[in-house]
Formats: sequence, structure tokens, C-alpha cells
Amino acid sequence: MQKTRIGIVGYGNIGRAAAETIKTTPDMELAVVVVESQFLNEPIPPALAGVTVIDDIARLDGVKVALLCTPSRSMPELASEILKMGINTVDCYDIHGQLAGLRRDLDVVAKTHGTVAVVSAGWDPGTDSMVRCMFEIMAPRGITYTNFGPGMSMGHSVAVKALPGVVNALSMTIPLGTGVHRRMVYVQPVPGQDFKVIEQTIKNDPYFIKDDTHVIEVENVLDLIDMGHGVEMERKGVSGQAHNQMLKFSMRINNPALTAQVMVASARATLKQHPGAYTMIQIPIIDYMYGDQEDIINRLV
Amino acid sequence: MQKTRIGIVGYGNIGRAAAETIKTTPDMELAVVVVESQFLNEPIPPALAGVTVIDDIARLDGVKVALLCTPSRSMPELASEILKMGINTVDCYDIHGQLAGLRRDLDVVAKTHGTVAVVSAGWDPGTDSMVRCMFEIMAPRGITYTNFGPGMSMGHSVAVKALPGVVNALSMTIPLGTGVHRRMVYVQPVPGQDFKVIEQTIKNDPYFIKDDTHVIEVENVLDLIDMGHGVEMERKGVSGQAHNQMLKFSMRINNPALTAQVMVASARATLKQHPGAYTMIQIPIIDYMYGDQEDIINRLV
Repeated sequence: MQKTRIGIVGYGNIGRAAAETIKTTPDMELAVVVVESQFLNEPIPPALAGVTVIDDIARLDGVKVALLCTPSRSMPELASEILKMGINTVDCYDIHGQLAGLRRDLDVVAKTHGTVAVVSAGWDPGTDSMVRCMFEIMAPRGITYTNFGPGMSMGHSVAVKALPGVVNALSMTIPLGTGVHRRMVYVQPVPGQDFKVIEQTIKNDPYFIKDDTHVIEVENVLDLIDMGHGVEMERKGVSGQAHNQMLKFSMRINNPALTAQVMVASARATLKQHPGAYTMIQIPIIDYMYGDQEDIINRLV
Repeated sequence: MQKTRIGIVGYGNIGRAAAETIKTTPDMELAVVVVESQFLNEPIPPALAGVTVIDDIARLDGVKVALLCTPSRSMPELASEILKMGINTVDCYDIHGQLAGLRRDLDVVAKTHGTVAVVSAGWDPGTDSMVRCMFEIMAPRGITYTNFGPGMSMGHSVAVKALPGVVNALSMTIPLGTGVHRRMVYVQPVPGQDFKVIEQTIKNDPYFIKDDTHVIEVENVLDLIDMGHGVEMERKGVSGQAHNQMLKFSMRINNPALTAQVMVASARATLKQHPGAYTMIQIPIIDYMYGDQEDIINRLV
């Protein structure tokens, strides 16, 4: 069997997890990793032995699918460029309010260049989105709550790290039910800094002002880092004329590992779609899976 | 908006629930119900006011999709006949070992006649099958357990009802975890019948012999009937190289109402597929949903 040659763009938490995942994936091989230029001065990590490590996406050619493991802000431009090179893309763009527009934009590019993009592959957006849709298929009227955590919020942590007087920070999301969350913010201040000022700044920040936010001073944020995360999604709704249909999906997971695994499955799915850009709910579930279709139907349906 | 004209074939628990569901579905209207001939001698139930009630599928023409709410044994033949009439079909065929073959057979018929069939639409097989696949996309190595109940097993109840000396029977499925189930069998014997004989016959029946089976004598089985059911599906598996990924889906539902709701969503999905026969995992999730695609992406992804 010919393995699909995969490129990874970005080698942070998700990029590293994607490299590990591809090693366990029978129908794929990791061909190229695109890193930041300064990374090229360091020794190649053992995990990338035998892989071409470059700092320029122009040298990605030869791969069939690129996994974009970079911050969301840079993804639209990056995805567009790579699609134009004739390479399928999978991104983990996580800005909910803007992903529909990104999909429409990339759809035009992908169709023009005969390529396929999967937009917002991961767990939320991603597999959680699939579950939210399934809940509405099963009970079209009702309310769905998505409760995140306990787990680290990357976005909130980055926002606090950017504040003056902060060396490092970690914002944990704590689910309180019915989609309400508490923020537990662990801050390592610059020595001599007035912690009370930092605390007030965080509590008044638009990122935090609407939530029950607690700010705690710690000596070393790195000692607190744990990549575990979770979600509990619940819907109470109506099927036909039967009320009180109770649906629940929950998970406890390693966050970058799950994101990377879903991106790898989405890379497989790109090979089976017509040119265009898709969110995960627009692709048949079976297309993400490895193996013979009849076997999958026999075993899992 | 032109509503899709739907036919229902069979008017038992699921057929009745399907009729109720279509009333709550903005893009569909119930046009025809096909019943057993003897039913035509009775007054039309109020729920079917304004609907054509017939006893012959040959008079189904004019509907776009037929929901087959009949026992599984008769479904393959029935689906094939209706597909040949140029009408899409949705069935709730529930024999897991044989549905892959049924799909292949109906695929040939549907492609020949330019129609679409959704095979095994319901919750198991059906939405549970979608969840089992999603679990494997998220954590390709590991074990999934499907725990049913507490709820009535139609198949087991019918098997007991067919025994000599039994007036009526109800078999409840009780989940014990890791896919192991207890059977609680409530039997209303013919007066004067030796209950011990019935009990032994049930416990030695191939349907029950492998399970922890308890048989209880009751005066009136009808007093025990409750259409509630449930499932708890769990997977502990590996994403990439991260072990101990814990995934869970659970629900408590009205059984015929959920089956009918999923069948109605599948009827909608038939309108968006190329001719052929599909299990639920072979159709994009968004195709089951009512509403504008961009709105759905914006709201749920």
C-alpha cells in the first residue's frame, strides 16, 4: 500500500503530537515538517529522524496533505497559499465566529486549484461540533450545553501572559454546568510586582470580566501544566412529540493528542472529497476512518 | 417552501411515532400511510386526519420518500420494491450481521432506478453506529463498550411471547457494564400453566442462555410497558501516543420517538445524496439537518 505523504506546518504542542500520531497511522508517513527559522539552528529532535525539516512552505511540494499546526490568526493566509500549491490542507482554526467565512474563502481557492481543505478539525470546533449536530438530529427542539474542562484554556492563558508584570500564566477552565464556567488563573509575577494590580487587571479584562474569575499567585507556572482537558455536552430536547429526551457526551482527554489525531483522520478524509473546503460536519463519518468500508460497516454499524 | 411528501409503511409503534414527528417537521408533510388491510375496516385515527390511508404500496406514488416502519424480516423485499417505483426509502432494519449485505443489495436497485435508500436508520444501528465510528476516529486503538438499557428489548419480548403457555411477556435489558447485560423477563402465563416450566424454557432458550436471566410471573404485562430506553457507550483508547483517552456517550430516551425522529432526518438526507444505498455513517451529518447550511455551520461548528 502506498502511504500518503504528510507535511506538518508548525512544531508546537499540536505539531509534535501530530508527528507522534502519524507514526502510529498505517496509511500515512510524515515527509516534511516546516519549523520557525531559528529552530533550524538546533539539533533535530529524535522524533523527526528521517524527516525533512525546513523553514519555508515553498519546499512542501511532494506532500499530499499539510497539517497546519500554527496559531489560528495566521492560518487563513497559510492555508490559502498551500492549497494553491496543489496540496490539501487540514487546519485547527478555532475562532468559532469566523470559521464559516474562512471555509467559504478557502472553498473558492480549493476549487480553483483542485485541492481539498478541512477547516477547524479538532475537538471544539471539530468532533464536538459533530456531536452538537447529532444531538439536534435526534432531538430538534431543546437546549444543548457545552461544558468545558477542567483543563487549560490556551486563549485565556496567552491573554494573561501578555500583561505587563507577568512572567508566566495558566488559565484553567472549570465547568459549573449549563455552559457556565469559572476561570482559575495562576500567575507567576515579575519579582517585586504588586500582585493586587495584576489581579485587578485580569478581573477587568474583557476575556474574564463576565466569568467568575479567581487569580492566584504561584512561584512557577510550569509546575502546574497538564495537557489534560475534557468536555461534557448535554441536551434535553424533544424527538417528534416525546419530551425529556436526555443526551450526553463527555470525555477526558489529552488535548493536543486528540486534536492531532482528529487532524490526521481529517487528512485521510481530504483524499475522498471533491475539491473544496469542508467543516467536519460536511464529510461522511466513514471517510475519516482507516480500513475497508464494508469491514467498517460490518463491525461498527 | 415546497414540503417533501412522505409516506409511512407500517403503523405500529414506530409508524405512529413517525406520523407524530412529521407533524413537527417544517420541511415535510405526511401524504400516505400504508397499513394492514384489516386496519382499513376501523375508523381512521385522529392523528391521520387528511392523510391517505391505504393497504397497498402500489398506491404510494406521489410521495418522494417512504419510511419503512415494518418488522426487519420483511424490509429488504419491501425496500427493493419501493425503490423500483422511483421512491426513496428509509428503513430501520436492525439485524446487525446482515445490514451490510442489505445495503449492497439495495445499492444496486437504487442506482438502477435513480433512487436513494438509507439503511438501518434509528439509534442502534443508527446514531450509536455514528458514535462508535467517531470514538475510533478520536482514539483508533482501544475498546468500545455499548451498554443498553434499562429498557424493553423488542426481540427478546417477542421470543418469549411466542412460547406455549404465555399470554404476554416483556423482556427488559439491564446494563451491567462492559457490554454485559442482565435480562429481566416478566411473563403473564396462561391460567393454570406451570410457571416453573416456562421459566426453564426461557432460561434454556438460545436468546437467553448466555445472559444472566431472571423470569418473574406477573398478572398483567401491559401494566409494565414503558417505551423508555437508554444506552451508555464508553471507549478507553489511544490518540496518537496518548493513552487513557476516555470517551462516553449516554442517553435516556423514548425509543420509538427517537427511532422515528432519526428516520425523518434520514428522509431529508436522501434528497441530498447521489442514487445508491447508504448507512448513516456514509452521509455527511449536515445533510440530516433542517435549515440553511451556512447558518448551521455558524451556529453549531
